[in-house]
Amino acid sequence: MNGNRFGRLFQVTTFGESHGEAMGCTVSGCPAGLELSAEDIQEDLDRRKPGQSMITTSRGEPDAVSIKSGIQDGYTTGTPIGLVIQNKDARSGKYEPFITAPRPSHGDFTYSAKFGTRNWGGGGRSSARETVNWVAAGAIAKKILAREGIELKAHVNQIGDIEAPDVSFADILEHSEENDVRCAHPETAERMQERIAEYQEAGDSIGGSIYFEAQGVPVGLGAPRFDSLSARLGQAMMAVPATTAFEFGLGTEAAEWTGTERNDEWAFDDDGDPTPVENDHGGIQGGISSGEPIYGEVTLHAPTSIPTSQQTADWETGELKEEQVIGRHDPVLPPRGVPVVEAMLALTLVDFMLLSGRLNPDRVDDRPGEYDTEYHPSSPRNE
Amino acid sequence: MNGNRFGRLFQVTTFGESHGEAMGCTVSGCPAGLELSAEDIQEDLDRRKPGQSMITTSRGEPDAVSIKSGIQDGYTTGTPIGLVIQNKDARSGKYEPFITAPRPSHGDFTYSAKFGTRNWGGGGRSSARETVNWVAAGAIAKKILAREGIELKAHVNQIGDIEAPDVSFADILEHSEENDVRCAHPETAERMQERIAEYQEAGDSIGGSIYFEAQGVPVGLGAPRFDSLSARLGQAMMAVPATTAFEFGLGTEAAEWTGTERNDEWAFDDDGDPTPVENDHGGIQGGISSGEPIYGEVTLHAPTSIPTSQQTADWETGELKEEQVIGRHDPVLPPRGVPVVEAMLALTLVDFMLLSGRLNPDRVDDRPGEYDTEYHPSSPRNE
Amino acid sequence: MNGNRFGRLFQVTTFGESHGEAMGCTVSGCPAGLELSAEDIQEDLDRRKPGQSMITTSRGEPDAVSIKSGIQDGYTTGTPIGLVIQNKDARSGKYEPFITAPRPSHGDFTYSAKFGTRNWGGGGRSSARETVNWVAAGAIAKKILAREGIELKAHVNQIGDIEAPDVSFADILEHSEENDVRCAHPETAERMQERIAEYQEAGDSIGGSIYFEAQGVPVGLGAPRFDSLSARLGQAMMAVPATTAFEFGLGTEAAEWTGTERNDEWAFDDDGDPTPVENDHGGIQGGISSGEPIYGEVTLHAPTSIPTSQQTADWETGELKEEQVIGRHDPVLPPRGVPVVEAMLALTLVDFMLLSGRLNPDRVDDRPGEYDTEYHPSSPRNE
Amino acid sequence: MNGNRFGRLFQVTTFGESHGEAMGCTVSGCPAGLELSAEDIQEDLDRRKPGQSMITTSRGEPDAVSIKSGIQDGYTTGTPIGLVIQNKDARSGKYEPFITAPRPSHGDFTYSAKFGTRNWGGGGRSSARETVNWVAAGAIAKKILAREGIELKAHVNQIGDIEAPDVSFADILEHSEENDVRCAHPETAERMQERIAEYQEAGDSIGGSIYFEAQGVPVGLGAPRFDSLSARLGQAMMAVPATTAFEFGLGTEAAEWTGTERNDEWAFDDDGDPTPVENDHGGIQGGISSGEPIYGEVTLHAPTSIPTSQQTADWETGELKEEQVIGRHDPVLPPRGVPVVEAMLALTLVDFMLLSGRLNPDRVDDRPGEYDTEYHPSSPRNE
Repeated sequence: MNGNRFGRLFQVTTFGESHGEAMGCTVSGCPAGLELSAEDIQEDLDRRKPGQSMITTSRGEPDAVSIKSGIQDGYTTGTPIGLVIQNKDARSGKYEPFITAPRPSHGDFTYSAKFGTRNWGGGGRSSARETVNWVAAGAIAKKILAREGIELKAHVNQIGDIEAPDVSFADILEHSEENDVRCAHPETAERMQERIAEYQEAGDSIGGSIYFEAQGVPVGLGAPRFDSLSARLGQAMMAVPATTAFEFGLGTEAAEWTGTERNDEWAFDDDGDPTPVENDHGGIQGGISSGEPIYGEVTLHAPTSIPTSQQTADWETGELKEEQVIGRHDPVLPPRGVPVVEAMLALTLVDFMLLSGRLNPDRVDDRPGEYDTEYHPSSPRNE
Repeated sequence: MNGNRFGRLFQVTTFGESHGEAMGCTVSGCPAGLELSAEDIQEDLDRRKPGQSMITTSRGEPDAVSIKSGIQDGYTTGTPIGLVIQNKDARSGKYEPFITAPRPSHGDFTYSAKFGTRNWGGGGRSSARETVNWVAAGAIAKKILAREGIELKAHVNQIGDIEAPDVSFADILEHSEENDVRCAHPETAERMQERIAEYQEAGDSIGGSIYFEAQGVPVGLGAPRFDSLSARLGQAMMAVPATTAFEFGLGTEAAEWTGTERNDEWAFDDDGDPTPVENDHGGIQGGISSGEPIYGEVTLHAPTSIPTSQQTADWETGELKEEQVIGRHDPVLPPRGVPVVEAMLALTLVDFMLLSGRLNPDRVDDRPGEYDTEYHPSSPRNE
Repeated sequence: MNGNRFGRLFQVTTFGESHGEAMGCTVSGCPAGLELSAEDIQEDLDRRKPGQSMITTSRGEPDAVSIKSGIQDGYTTGTPIGLVIQNKDARSGKYEPFITAPRPSHGDFTYSAKFGTRNWGGGGRSSARETVNWVAAGAIAKKILAREGIELKAHVNQIGDIEAPDVSFADILEHSEENDVRCAHPETAERMQERIAEYQEAGDSIGGSIYFEAQGVPVGLGAPRFDSLSARLGQAMMAVPATTAFEFGLGTEAAEWTGTERNDEWAFDDDGDPTPVENDHGGIQGGISSGEPIYGEVTLHAPTSIPTSQQTADWETGELKEEQVIGRHDPVLPPRGVPVVEAMLALTLVDFMLLSGRLNPDRVDDRPGEYDTEYHPSSPRNE
Repeated sequence: MNGNRFGRLFQVTTFGESHGEAMGCTVSGCPAGLELSAEDIQEDLDRRKPGQSMITTSRGEPDAVSIKSGIQDGYTTGTPIGLVIQNKDARSGKYEPFITAPRPSHGDFTYSAKFGTRNWGGGGRSSARETVNWVAAGAIAKKILAREGIELKAHVNQIGDIEAPDVSFADILEHSEENDVRCAHPETAERMQERIAEYQEAGDSIGGSIYFEAQGVPVGLGAPRFDSLSARLGQAMMAVPATTAFEFGLGTEAAEWTGTERNDEWAFDDDGDPTPVENDHGGIQGGISSGEPIYGEVTLHAPTSIPTSQQTADWETGELKEEQVIGRHDPVLPPRGVPVVEAMLALTLVDFMLLSGRLNPDRVDDRPGEYDTEYHPSSPRNE
């Protein structure tokens, strides 16, 4: 079964299993003329990388990306960009007790039941490791969006019962990467860190949530009804492993707001354009971007791999058994989930930039003019 | 711009504006051999229909559906099913004050900015009226699912600050249609009704939420990573007008649950198959259905059309003005949203039943054997 | 099973059977601001219409199109355009002998075997009558292309053993509609007409071919490798009923040409742009339009419905029988196929105009400036 | 711009340029349980490989494929299959004279005009080298089809003015690989070889055509109208580099056949099923496979790279110049095109096998029963 592609014009197709030989993705639909290097991509991969701090799995993966095609002299050529990331620290041995006995709340049972088999090492294809591909593709999308003046960022705003107060976009940009939790509110970050340590010591894990925001998004992105911006963001974010909720604007709170409270009245901005006086609508009206910041939240449940024995049912032996998932795992997901959420947000936005004609699908012409294969037809027949 | 199609194998394509001549949709990909009549569809349309109670708009639309193709002698033929629903009670006059002055938090501004124009009568294409097409197509999907033993239902579980206690699926089936609010908990329904009346009198509106559940869904639906069942449900539900949040399983609560609490341990069912002892995972594991009930919640913000003047900015005159949306509107959306949410759930599930090979895309052979154009090749070359 | 949609950004979805209640299609993805009326569409429908001459079926269908949505004050709004064409002269009775005995070389057997049923009146969904939808959608595509300076036309260049000499595009524009055969070479047209009459009298039918050409197509349309312009034209043309061959440029003749002969050397045009000195490549190089005229040919086999008894096998009775298809049919297909081929060419080109960013998917702004819902944001945030 | 994916359920996505670092493709949608090794794929790659004979380019590419994911213990897992093929013998230097001066009838001009740049080494993305990916993916498709009793094969039936007589499918299977030309008619093969040598000596190249046939295809493949089997074969074959014509059944000859001649009357086969007495329809009726052999022909023009100087126009210097393409090229394309045509035929058929529900998209269960992650739910909730 497929389902390994995201995007309609900016198409990302991925492959790879947690403990397989390599991860990889092909980005088809990236315009030509974008300056791009492996370093541009590596930066985000390092933010998602395991072993980056005490609160992430100790698996040692450099996650070094190699660009196989689509680039020439440092610029994209409009042809598919092939990316490959070798797996270095695969040790599937630890998963043997669970080959025929599904780990609690993992994809073991559903994968085996669906496909009649599964790559059982570390969850195989169902592992969150697969998001390394998303982050790689997302880094390319971010570069394109930056050229268009679109800036986006996420941070961790809840871990267990600890919630961060609202922080400005500027604060998120400035502070979210300052601590291991990736919470833009320093004091809250410290408390989160302590709470995570408690659960780690107790051999348990905990859930949390990620807040995301995008600024500079032009009016007009989104294709109602079924491909509205909110619908496609919903798909993008609900695809993130362990996500149980997606909210934008007021999210679940909207249930308790009245129309008079939530409605954003209109005024004029400095250019004389109508502009909402507030942004309770979250930057999307009628399924289309309004030009206001787009913000929302994603809830991630607690990691299902915990160093505590739980009951499983072995379909081979027909016996129940208490087993503990050894492996190397995260006590909490949001810190490493931040770049993943940013990637899905970027991929969704760049796709709509192309779909709405705000980006030329063939060329962005970043490339210096002297670039020798460049050719701009001047003849009217080419207009 | 497109975006008017839902589904990959069970494809629904819609057209129509709130105050246009007609609404319509084409269902392409419905297997042949399904017994189907306009009545089957009408039933659900009547549940969504305006003017059905004191708490819905008084617009008088019979919403009578006409089947133009795809049916023969009462059975589907495997060819596209063309549906048309005439608009009877269109009165766009009332919207004139807003032609160049966007209504607060509607799609007026975004549609005009995107398309350089818009059908301004009652929101045109952006109107929730368009969901009449979804419900029509969803009724066909429900019929197919019922044949497969899949039952689904939704009910209103929150209006403003009034939340319904958890109710069983049996209760939802039995009670949700007994009251105008479509809340399966009778006492709560009454309180909701009163609360709605208060807001109505105050010339205001209020938000709420809808709980949905599907039972009998086989293991194996969903195509991770990007087309996981949760991802596609996310798209489907976030496309529902006024939706600001989608949750499945524990939803936003998952942030506060630990791994030991949320993990569902495994036991054996009566058939000796592994079965989770609880269903905190909401029927989806690793993006694939687990065979357990699928449940979740959708939040709808308060209707933006309220009988109270609010400020808008006229881009033609360049002046600010206080205007009241006359029209005929709902004080709350969830009661009429219930069949819409059910439709999107049904369309998502039937699409995956086809994508996962659990339904034959060509024929379901409900049709009586003597049906005269029937032909079942017996030759091996046809197997 | 689906398969009733054409186009990726300019999406045409059709429904309807030959002797059903109505034919219809939804055009999703047409930019806003295009002046459009039913008359614009009717013109092409009349060219495809039955009963227009002695060499077409006598079925009396006005094929009057009704626009149900997507238009306001004579201009498109960017929302889906719903078109419906009522069937007036349906008489399926004549097909009763063939309900369980397939007509030779029709789709009767394959449809019944695939779907376990079929709408047997006049071939139901498999009837060429369905192309009325294509021509309706194609007329909209042509209008868009004309705005961009793209002109396209087809004519009949072979009927049986009678081939027309090469004629210029100007001649095709001027003469193809002057005779019933739609051959742009008058003398040949006469001979074709006589030949057709001979076969008609003999109770037989004959094949033929259609030449098509498009001028003013900009450089850069086509998305190699799998969606090259030639590949998508191949799909479009091979979907035309009765088509057995698609050729572009030299077509099958290319097998006998050497590289030195076929290669088009480069010179400079008046604007100093490289331009091929010849156009043996047919306007497509590397799967992408070169700016030169795109031309090719489509072969249509003889109509399978002929007033002569042929043997069929009744799967109900298990008996062989000699039957004659009564009905009302064409002795030759190309004359009515001309607008169909033009439609598929137009739909393919407009789709690539959108895919390659040469057309804005949201708005073409044909619309007069004073149009009152128009709004062009001036703020940079909207650029 | 995208266009690098083929297939709707069996999705092949490719990357790579002629003289880039590597070629690769991802096969998403291959059912689990198929026994598969690199050797299975290598076999076909070797048939397409350069340097395999005197009449192919001398470029030395082993074209060794490496499987990066989707396989476990020798069987597919239902997850995407990542394939990478390193380029070993890249020498782009030879193309420098053509960086800003397009080679005659190549994609140089169109790529540069479209993307404002291009990878100029050996045609970059537009090179036929890219078909190595198609053949790799096609080999997987062939293995699936073989399990279903579907056999397909192609051979060269024309080179320049030398045409092979009709040969049986058995002869094609037996003889097509016996000679360098891949013509199943030995005597004709010899004459073709001589003719090719003549052109080679003359510093020229020549066109030709490939005949393909598939047997054992079940009734019911194809999704009319726009995704009819003939339409999708048309897209598949017209995507093959240098293709100028696609024919199936009678092809262009159909123009001269009458209805009585071409119509295939019906009889009964040994199983009592209706079966056409002839197969002039080429195995497709009404756009759907009839169960009869599917056959057709593809015309490939002469290679455009020839060791003879031709005129080009340098858009940098604005001067005309006579240049010769050095490089290492084929004097004729069909011999190496045979596995490419087979691949596209296989990919099209396997996609329809999935789309029509004749293949389970999740699992084919080739896998031995004791395979340890296997799990076949027995509970009714999983049926």
